[in-house]
Amino acid sequence: MNATGIIVEYNPFHNGHLHHLEMTKELTGADVTVAVMSGYFLQRGEPALLGKWERAGMALHAGVDLVIELPYSFATQHSSVFAKGAVSLLDSVGCSSFCFGSEDGNIETFEGTANTLQTRQAEYNAAIRKYSKEGLSYPAALSKAFLSLGLKEPFIDLSKPNNILGFHYIQARDEIDSGMKAYTVTRKAADYHDEHFASPSIASATSIRKALFGDGDPGEIRSLLPPESMRALKAYEDTYGSLHRWEDYWPLLQYKILSTPIDQLRRIYEIEEGIEHRIVECASRSSSFTECMNRLKSKRYTWTRLQRMLLHILMNVTKEEMSARSSRPSYIRLLAMSASGREYLRLHKKAISLPLISKLSSADPVEAALDIRAANIFSMGLKGPDARMESMKKEWSTPPLQLQKS
Amino acid sequence: MNATGIIVEYNPFHNGHLHHLEMTKELTGADVTVAVMSGYFLQRGEPALLGKWERAGMALHAGVDLVIELPYSFATQHSSVFAKGAVSLLDSVGCSSFCFGSEDGNIETFEGTANTLQTRQAEYNAAIRKYSKEGLSYPAALSKAFLSLGLKEPFIDLSKPNNILGFHYIQARDEIDSGMKAYTVTRKAADYHDEHFASPSIASATSIRKALFGDGDPGEIRSLLPPESMRALKAYEDTYGSLHRWEDYWPLLQYKILSTPIDQLRRIYEIEEGIEHRIVECASRSSSFTECMNRLKSKRYTWTRLQRMLLHILMNVTKEEMSARSSRPSYIRLLAMSASGREYLRLHKKAISLPLISKLSSADPVEAALDIRAANIFSMGLKGPDARMESMKKEWSTPPLQLQKS
Repeated sequence: MNATGIIVEYNPFHNGHLHHLEMTKELTGADVTVAVMSGYFLQRGEPALLGKWERAGMALHAGVDLVIELPYSFATQHSSVFAKGAVSLLDSVGCSSFCFGSEDGNIETFEGTANTLQTRQAEYNAAIRKYSKEGLSYPAALSKAFLSLGLKEPFIDLSKPNNILGFHYIQARDEIDSGMKAYTVTRKAADYHDEHFASPSIASATSIRKALFGDGDPGEIRSLLPPESMRALKAYEDTYGSLHRWEDYWPLLQYKILSTPIDQLRRIYEIEEGIEHRIVECASRSSSFTECMNRLKSKRYTWTRLQRMLLHILMNVTKEEMSARSSRPSYIRLLAMSASGREYLRLHKKAISLPLISKLSSADPVEAALDIRAANIFSMGLKGPDARMESMKKEWSTPPLQLQKS
Repeated sequence: MNATGIIVEYNPFHNGHLHHLEMTKELTGADVTVAVMSGYFLQRGEPALLGKWERAGMALHAGVDLVIELPYSFATQHSSVFAKGAVSLLDSVGCSSFCFGSEDGNIETFEGTANTLQTRQAEYNAAIRKYSKEGLSYPAALSKAFLSLGLKEPFIDLSKPNNILGFHYIQARDEIDSGMKAYTVTRKAADYHDEHFASPSIASATSIRKALFGDGDPGEIRSLLPPESMRALKAYEDTYGSLHRWEDYWPLLQYKILSTPIDQLRRIYEIEEGIEHRIVECASRSSSFTECMNRLKSKRYTWTRLQRMLLHILMNVTKEEMSARSSRPSYIRLLAMSASGREYLRLHKKAISLPLISKLSSADPVEAALDIRAANIFSMGLKGPDARMESMKKEWSTPPLQLQKS
């Protein structure tokens, strides 16, 4: 059996994701699709709307065959680390290809750019450092460094968020010497950052989340999500009282910041350049997460980078802890499998290069420490002790979701 | 002018405290009364029902002339450290005497016991260590060690909580070589731990707190507290939405425990003997503070000692931080003063041996670090960001309360 990989967050699973999944199957002709998915916290440094099990379930219903968790220490990082973790996992499960969505949509452009850059890596890295030092945010420095090389067309427009991710997937694959073939599909209709619906049936997850929390017309949202996603969102709210938002963690975050001496705050991962002082100052004067973020925001720091800093503070992840983890994931945490997915695992057992963990309780507690912590802390955004306890218990006791072939 | 000192928590100020205050004035004949009062967190390792300003106000209305805060690093400790901090402060403001409530009620017994023990200190300490090692709780070990010396009567019954405290006041006074004369008044009617009202107008603070949070008859409570205490309790609830209870801090405490790696937990003050493992275990299985405490409780650890451990975890106070503080308070934080109190300070300015801090913003941030943290964290038990911000701001901006002579 032949497997292809995709890298996802599904927050929540919507029609654009369905399109990507169907195009992936069509383009690669694979027998099974493996999704590497962020767990409870996402690349932008925020909690997922709903737990990993519910999002894995959405994926399974939409036709994904295996859902594997991207550990916290890779999922909540900037593109290059995120990409390395995700691509490594796809490689260790034995995928022969992977397929990502991009604004560019042309895989030759990605491969060509990556090839060229590889030969000029030192020059490129030096330029990124230079522009970062000048006070540019990381994505802006990346894009400017790239332009400074004066490459001949065609090259990728690295100011587009999905192009950046895709480019890092390709680089990561080459870095780990994987033979996986890369594909890309053009993202339809909605831009990643679009806050308004641009197409009648496809919208970005960002705009759907905005709509879920307020001014959205429920009828309109229904036309953008598969029925199973709608059902899962509603079931989650019924069971746990609410979806998850950064605001719900604000009392914990503010407590954490104001109870941590400045020298301990400095030991938190990604806290650099004295920003710990501004964080304490802003947190003590703000009465909500949004207010604190708006106070912190500056030209130098992107919203995403600040959110990740605050997430690492909430999670109490130190530089020391993060540097102790290996540069690639050390186990495969299986969240969901279809009948074909199960069959694939059975047939390829020997080719899978990492231990397969199907229950948290069987994971090495040291290796899984950050993911255990993430599960506990994610649960604490829920209101009421019963919902919190229920959510924590679920993480420990749930075996991979399964869906029988219909 | 002549000052006498008392050591209090006033949680809340009730008729028994009024009796103690009036007897103190009568016995010592002093012109002004100075109260050293715990701040936001108390000796039993729990939050005060209401803020320090409101409790200082109760004291002022009842006739105390100066209210001084006992810093967190002395207030939330076992009797000997608590006593040393409080007695040192009374000595530094120039009190010529102090007066405490006790079950025993006879000052000669206290002085005699302290004298005798001083000559047999090494033997006494060795016996305490021995009984502690055998698994007895600290109060039990103290009492048994004392009995093991085989002293001839009269000696103090050190199984009574107020006798223990009083005894430590005397020891502390001798240890710092203070010339203050000690007095004691018999505690009337209610035992410290009594949960039921024993006298028609005097009850222990414990039983009043129980009554405030549930099955108490409001009429009955009214007969036990001065009208000003009733008014202040009601005003506090109106302003901040509720009084403070450990349960309100449970989400923060559970978050703190489950987000802290075991080796960091071990660095918290008073966390010893591997109890950090049981704390993590109990916290992850409990849905309330009381449930967690009941799981933790054992013969070896008193309720109070466990509460203090959990408080230091909530406060994130490390062993290192606590050992860096000096063995006596380094400043006098003034919370409230009557006209006579102000006059006393004016006349004795030169005799006061420590810097007098009248606003938190003028305190040394390193020396006051734990008290700043205590103020912030105490505020976080309140519901709603507005109440929390209001409470935090109050701590920074409030000058000492004043009461004009009527």
